[in-house]
Order: sequence, then structure tokens, then C-alpha cells
Amino acid sequence: MSASPPARPAPGRFEVLYRIAAPSRAEAAARARAVALEQTVEFPEGLVPPGFIRDQVVGRLEGIERAGDAYLARLSFLTACAGGELTQLLNLLFGNSSLQPGLRLEALCPGPGLRRFLPGPRFGLPGLRRATGVKARPLLSTALKPMGLSAAALAERAYQFALGGVDLIKDDHGLADQGWAPFGERVRRCAAAVRRANRETGRRSLYLPNVTAGPAETIRRARLARRAGAGGLLVAPGLCGFATLQALAADPAVGLPLLAHPALLGSFTVSRSAGMAHRVLYGQLLRLSGADASIFPHWGGRFAFSREECLAIAAGCREPFGGWRPILPVPAGGMSLQRVPELLECYGQEAVFLVGGGLFADGPDLAGTARRFLRLVGGHA
Amino acid sequence: MSASPPARPAPGRFEVLYRIAAPSRAEAAARARAVALEQTVEFPEGLVPPGFIRDQVVGRLEGIERAGDAYLARLSFLTACAGGELTQLLNLLFGNSSLQPGLRLEALCPGPGLRRFLPGPRFGLPGLRRATGVKARPLLSTALKPMGLSAAALAERAYQFALGGVDLIKDDHGLADQGWAPFGERVRRCAAAVRRANRETGRRSLYLPNVTAGPAETIRRARLARRAGAGGLLVAPGLCGFATLQALAADPAVGLPLLAHPALLGSFTVSRSAGMAHRVLYGQLLRLSGADASIFPHWGGRFAFSREECLAIAAGCREPFGGWRPILPVPAGGMSLQRVPELLECYGQEAVFLVGGGLFADGPDLAGTARRFLRLVGGHA
Repeated sequence: MSASPPARPAPGRFEVLYRIAAPSRAEAAARARAVALEQTVEFPEGLVPPGFIRDQVVGRLEGIERAGDAYLARLSFLTACAGGELTQLLNLLFGNSSLQPGLRLEALCPGPGLRRFLPGPRFGLPGLRRATGVKARPLLSTALKPMGLSAAALAERAYQFALGGVDLIKDDHGLADQGWAPFGERVRRCAAAVRRANRETGRRSLYLPNVTAGPAETIRRARLARRAGAGGLLVAPGLCGFATLQALAADPAVGLPLLAHPALLGSFTVSRSAGMAHRVLYGQLLRLSGADASIFPHWGGRFAFSREECLAIAAGCREPFGGWRPILPVPAGGMSLQRVPELLECYGQEAVFLVGGGLFADGPDLAGTARRFLRLVGGHA
Repeated sequence: MSASPPARPAPGRFEVLYRIAAPSRAEAAARARAVALEQTVEFPEGLVPPGFIRDQVVGRLEGIERAGDAYLARLSFLTACAGGELTQLLNLLFGNSSLQPGLRLEALCPGPGLRRFLPGPRFGLPGLRRATGVKARPLLSTALKPMGLSAAALAERAYQFALGGVDLIKDDHGLADQGWAPFGERVRRCAAAVRRANRETGRRSLYLPNVTAGPAETIRRARLARRAGAGGLLVAPGLCGFATLQALAADPAVGLPLLAHPALLGSFTVSRSAGMAHRVLYGQLLRLSGADASIFPHWGGRFAFSREECLAIAAGCREPFGGWRPILPVPAGGMSLQRVPELLECYGQEAVFLVGGGLFADGPDLAGTARRFLRLVGGHA
């Protein structure tokens, strides 16, 4: 038995890699078999009914191998156990197992079955390039902030950033529907401001309002944003649920690129031995849920991700995966213009560079700062 | 400055306790101030506009004190920053901070402002006692399993459990809408089976189907379940989002007690130094989101929670908190009838004891096993 390569799953099944902390292969295998039961029938092994349930429904340990100071176990699950739903797929992958220390979700090998009910990104990397018209350089992004400004003041900032050539101008993820900048007014003003700048520059900068809210309200805001001329949406699936992200991606009345924000997701990746690997969470899971780009903290900013973890996220976004479109990694979190050359070296062209507060550090000429940002990635300001 | 007691927040603000790993008080205070910025304006401190934003919108460090090998920092936030929405409240509490190691959300001191937009549990502890008619003993619960059984076979088990006196008979949380036991058929059959048993026993056992799904589908299933005669609902907010739980609690066309399952939430509590404290996640946050009872793994079963963590969850469920109704803690996760006396000693009467797979271990007479379960808590079988 070998855990890698993550072989083609058997027909009707998909595979999952777990990292298991255990002192021996035998103990790791015992834990892996416990996971296979826990994640499916949650039933004492000896009482599992023979036939279909024992042979198909219970997860199968397909392979196990040593990986550093732990073991990598490859399990397969019956695709039909996900019942055609993202929520139940997440439950199969890591529902009860999330409660276990020393057990980490490392990767998903989906096979062809999952795409039948998970269409994935509507735009992805190619769609975002088409939407912005940006071909041979990384896309640039910034955030409208700080929270507490009026809709008019945020719109003025949006105008300046678009004038300077920032491609994706998003709401700060804390902008919701607060009284000082209500969602509807903010979206109308900011979308209009970016449109006005686009007419002046001939570019196609997009405004992406934050639609993260309750289940019905997220969809309502997304449709309102579309009608008001937003060019994309910001959504935080850790706050509103991965299935709400998926619903946005699937809704033809929305039909906009979706930029995923990691708010509240950090606890899944804060332990090296439990939770989820960066690549599977900020890459694979967001991608199969329909995100077109994935924001994460680049190393050396205000957060603690390592360079290796950041590159693993970029791989999870862009590598071939289940037939879903590649999506754009969006390194962020305390970036500044000084670090753009390093971002280029790290991620290459197929990425979005998000500089938020750092764009404000060089004084009030935001359009001028944005133009410097653009020149740093080889764009024509 | 002192972190405790969690004083009454100033008017218009609520308070939050964070545990911060730091080598000195000065470093802990610096980290706490960084959290106050990160969770609100996400902006360099020197650039924050004076006036309303600097004075009100930016989080405030209200106190800090040493706690063991770390520090407890008490921060206050402007209630209006939550914009009247649970998703943005979660973001304020721990959005970007979830990405930080050595920082843990310990407790919430809500003040009166949050209840205006978060009505909380519709039933809570008193409502669940009224719904079941059970007065002076813990409520009993079990799960219909294993996944893979037909709706008819699950309904037969539901009938036996109700006949034996189990109060809350829930779907296993992996039962979604799989082809072998589709949601609609399962709910109709199981609700009818429990009704039939109730007619025979004169009790009021409730059937609680799992409605966890995508945002619109969860609500649709919940309403369908209500019409089919379900007595409550099982929902996993880690899978469908806390705001979907809240929407269920608020929906008058649902109007059923909500039993929260911890699937996928475990990663928030798997680290002792990061993520969230057990009490705030499985107690406070579920409660303000509208759960009426909170399932969690009791110590010494298949999971790794400590006795102290379990008691903290029970406290978070039942102690006075923001004016919300107390809810029922539901220790579970590998329990057996042998451990009921210890559960009684641990949690007393105001709890639900959930024994799932363990009820199947004593042979096929499920009603008989359920009667023994009932006698162990002083019920009349």
C-alpha cells in the first residue's frame, strides 16, 4: 500500500489524503481506519451491516506511507455519500475529524464524480483576464478602507484607484451594511466612480463590493450589485459558508467573478498537525466551491504563513485539479509597493497582487501611487 | 487596567476577551492594539482618520492582565460596526485574527446591543422541556444510523427508540439527501414512525431530521420537515454557516427546536493557544446564533476534549449571557450506557445525553436498550 501518487480513484469514489501523527505505521493505519468509519457510518466496526454499507459506504484505506514524522493515509469515499451537495462533501472530508488533534486534511483527489454537482469557478483565471482585459502581467488589487468612511468618501477612493490603473478594487471585507456607508448606496456610488474612471482611462477596472451576509441577503446583495454595475464580488466563505459561495457562483442573476476572503478560515490552518493544509483550504476547496480568486496572507506581512505554505496555496489555485478552471492566487496582508518585485518572483504573472493599507502610506495622491504600483508589474500607467 | 471582570461594556459597545501569547505585558498590549486595528479598520495606525473613526470605530484595549503563561486582553468594539448582522459580528470577533497563531478568542461580553439584531434561541432549555414534556431529568437523545440504510429501515429504528422513551431522535449528521434515503421520504417516514410510537407510549418523543445543506435548500428542507411533523431539526453550522442557523431560528415557517452539530467546527478548538475557547464556540456563539442545544464530544470518548473543556461548554450554554435563553449542552461522541452515571454527575439534570452507536451494542432490541437508558436517568420506562 502506498499513499502516493494520489491514484485515479475507483469509479464512483474520490480520494482524500490525511496526515496522521502516530508513533508507528500500525497505529497510523488503525487511526486511518477509524477516520474511515467516523466520516461515514459513525458506527462500531463490528456492527456495520455487511453488503453495500460495509463494502461501499464505509470509507476505505487505500494506502499509507511515512511522511517525515507522521504518516500520509489515502482514503477513498463513495461519491454518492456526498449526496450531490457541497455541505455533505465537506462533512465527509473533515466533519467529525476536525475535532481530532494530530489529524490533518492534506489534499483531495476528486476523480470525475464531484464536478457533476460542483461546477466550480464560473470565470477562473482566464475569465478574470477576459473581464479586465489584462493580458501579460499580474492583476492589481486594493481595498476601499477604512471602515467608518461614508459611501461618498469610499467612492472617491475607488475613483482614484481606478484612475491609477488598479484592476480589482474591492471593499474592505469589514464593509457590510453599516449605517455610515449602507450597502446599496455604497455599491451605486463606487460602481459609478469606477465606471467614470474607466471612461477616462480606457481601462476595465472592476469594483467588487463585499456581499458577505446571511444566506438570503448575500444573494440579494449580489444581484443588486450586478444591477448597479459591480464588476465582481468579494465574499468570505468562512463567515457565510462555502455553500453560499457556491450558490453565488451558480446564480445566473449574479454572473460575476468571485474573490474569496479568508476571514475566520485561519483557524483551519493555524496548527501544523491538525486542521487543513493551506493548499487544500485556500486552493482546492475554494476552487471547487466556485471562487475565481483566493486572497491569503503572503509571508512576511502581518501574518504568519510561510513562503512554502504560500506557494502551496498558489499551486492549489493553479495546478490541474478535477477539471475545474484554474483560479488566481491573491497574496495580501500587509503588502507594500516595496515587496512587488518579490511577489513577482514568487508568483509570476498568473496572480493578483493585493496591496491595501500600504497604498495609502505614500500620501494623498492615490492615483499617483496606483500608477507606481502598475509600473512595478510592467503595466503602462 | 484589568481584563476581568468582563465589565459592563460602555453604551453602544461590546467587549471581547482574547488570550495572547507574549513574553511580556508590553508585547501583549502591543499585540492587543494590533488586533483592535486589524479587526476593524485594517489600516496603519498613523493613517487612521481622527474623530469618529479613530475614537469609535477602531477597537479599544480596555484592559490586560496576566493569565498563566499568557495575557488576557479585553477589547471593546462599537456595536454599530457589526452592521446588525451575525456574519459581520463574527468577522469583528475573529475574522483576520483567526489567521494569527498565539491568539485565542476566549469570551464575549455582549452588553445589550447585540440582542437587538440577534434574538437567539427560540426555545432554549425551557422550550425544549415544554416541547418534550420532560421535567425532572436529563433529556435523552440518539442518532439514526448508519448511513446507507433505507428510509424505511431508519424509520423502523426511530420507532423502536421512541417506543423505548428516547426524547430526541435525530438523524445521524451524515444523512443528507442521498439516493438510498432521500430527505423527503426519510422525514415523512421517520416523523410518522415517531408519531405512531408516541400514540402507544403517551410520550412526546421528537424526530429531528438533519437539514444541513446549501443556503436556500436548508430553509426549504426545514419547512418541509415542519410540515411533515418533525419535532426539531439537526443543523451543522460549521457546514452551512452560523447565519443559516440564525435564519432557521428566525423563520416563523420553521419554528422548531434546533440541535447544533459540531461537524467541521473542531479546527477552531483543536489548538490550545489559537482559535477559540470551547466555551465561546460551542456555548456562546451557538447560543447567540439561535441553537437550542449544542452537541459536543464528552471527554474520554472517541475525541480529545478534556473534562474541563466540556464543563466550560456546559457553562457557556447555561450561564447568564446577554439576556439570551439558556440552552442545553449535549455531551456525545462515543458515549455508552455505562457512562450515564458519570454524565449525570458531570452535567446534572439540565442536559441532553446523546448515545448513538453505543445503543446498538446490546443487540437488536433497541426499544429495550432505550428503556434501560431511560431508567439510568430516573425516567419511568
